[in-house]
Amino acid sequence: MKVTKKEMLYEGKAKKVWSMVEDDDCYIVEFKDSLTAFNGLKKAEELGKGALNNKISTQIFKMLETKGIKTHLVDTISDNEQVVKKCKIIPLEVVVRNIATGSLTKRLGIKDGTVLPFTLVEFCYKVDELNDPILNDDHCLILNAVENIEELNYIRETAKKINNIMHNFFKEKGLKLVDFKIEFGKDKDGNIILADEISPDSCRFWDAKTNEKLDKDRFRQGLGGLKVAYEEVLNRILS
Amino acid sequence: MKVTKKEMLYEGKAKKVWSMVEDDDCYIVEFKDSLTAFNGLKKAEELGKGALNNKISTQIFKMLETKGIKTHLVDTISDNEQVVKKCKIIPLEVVVRNIATGSLTKRLGIKDGTVLPFTLVEFCYKVDELNDPILNDDHCLILNAVENIEELNYIRETAKKINNIMHNFFKEKGLKLVDFKIEFGKDKDGNIILADEISPDSCRFWDAKTNEKLDKDRFRQGLGGLKVAYEEVLNRILS
Ligand SMILES: Nc1ncnc2c1ncn2[C@@H]1O[C@H](COP(=O)(O)OP(=O)(O)OP(=O)(O)O)[C@@H](O)[C@H]1O
Ligand SMILES: Nc1ncnc2c1ncn2[C@@H]1O[C@H](COP(=O)(O)OP(=O)(O)OP(=O)(O)O)[C@@H](O)[C@H]1O
Ligand SMILES: [Mg+2]
Ligand SMILES: [Mg+2]
Repeated sequence: MKVTKKEMLYEGKAKKVWSMVEDDDCYIVEFKDSLTAFNGLKKAEELGKGALNNKISTQIFKMLETKGIKTHLVDTISDNEQVVKKCKIIPLEVVVRNIATGSLTKRLGIKDGTVLPFTLVEFCYKVDELNDPILNDDHCLILNAVENIEELNYIRETAKKINNIMHNFFKEKGLKLVDFKIEFGKDKDGNIILADEISPDSCRFWDAKTNEKLDKDRFRQGLGGLKVAYEEVLNRILS
Repeated sequence: MKVTKKEMLYEGKAKKVWSMVEDDDCYIVEFKDSLTAFNGLKKAEELGKGALNNKISTQIFKMLETKGIKTHLVDTISDNEQVVKKCKIIPLEVVVRNIATGSLTKRLGIKDGTVLPFTLVEFCYKVDELNDPILNDDHCLILNAVENIEELNYIRETAKKINNIMHNFFKEKGLKLVDFKIEFGKDKDGNIILADEISPDSCRFWDAKTNEKLDKDRFRQGLGGLKVAYEEVLNRILS
């Protein structure tokens, strides 16, 4: 696929988004080596992290497509770039949790590592200045994050479906899918599709046998060995 | 009604709860003159506040009973005491909002005074040490705050019904019902009934013409004139 970058439209904490010459309905997403945590308070660079996330996210999105999940992925065009369908991002961080850890344990006093009795879906309002506050369904509607409750239910059900597929996929690879964050967008036809990325930046993976953390918590908690962990995740996916 | 206090079971920020000699299925609730805000960080005493809240809450609960809402109120036995049905309190602060103000505006960036497009119901986890975090439906179930989603929906629908009744009642009295917090409990037969109190400590009332605040925000915001405001609310209710 021959593509030419036109203009950088957005530089986020982990990716840059470009318009492209060849197709007005697509963007080029460039994965950066930057790492941030605690809403940008902690920062670092890790050479090669962007390329790893690009590969991991590509594999996961392709796998999800084979199971019937519609995604924004069009093609991966270089080590750290992919072409995606241009979307209007729905301003919700959709968090899916199988095991309690991180902010959930602190907010609600649930013991770290507790296996949840059922899959928990949380919607957070994607506004950095507000610190991504947690929302209930009424809030999502009042903030016009979605147009109606049917859209919200569709997003919730799709997130659970994605969790089921990924949970089984990673189980086979010896990884526990603890939790993850995804984003949805509306494509030009108004379809709600999976956008953004799915990577160890946005998921928590624990080794099934040792519970070793193989995700961004290595950075958040200063454990070191981040790149080795991300490479391990990629290798397991490709195995 | 002749009742005798037995043992003080709980002293909260605004009330004391006593067992009573005459009836094992009832408690005596004593309204205190203490005022607290910001989860106990700001404190004061206001002579007569307890008696005002006892009278106001009694009037509102009786009015709600006439409209078919089941409550814990049995009888008001003195200036600052009432007899209530003993309940197992459901650990949710049920917040109902008609106009955005207070924590909602800060958390979600909604302009103070915005009339909400529909009645917003929020569930907060009633745990002071966690600062009453906001919950979605999944959280309520995972925390076993309720036994099943039907109970939660019943609480939500009853809260909206109470809002409708109170909204109309106070409109006739020249007061805007901005928002309020209620608690529900299970009585000995397992029925979910309205418990705790409804007073200017737990509601926001704005004068319909001047938008003057006639509730605990006078204390939170250091506006003074708290008792005069509570007396005004009582007088309007009795008018
Ligand atoms: N298909 C798409 N169309 C349009 N925008 C997209 C698409 N996929 C992802 N995005 C958006 O592109 C941006 C990617 O940048 P990045 O993830 O680094 O942002 P960020 O720093 O995490 O900030 P935030 O995600 O909070 O905006 C995000 O805002 C994301 O929502
Ligand atoms: N019918 C009832 N049966 C049992 N407990 C009740 C009943 N009605 C209210 N309560 C409880 O009695 C206590 C009243 O005390 P108060 O409202 O002062 O507590 P508080 O300081 O606000 O703390 P909190 O309400 O967070 O426990 C509350 O814990 C309330 O939930
Ligand atoms: Mg992002
Ligand atoms: Mg209370």
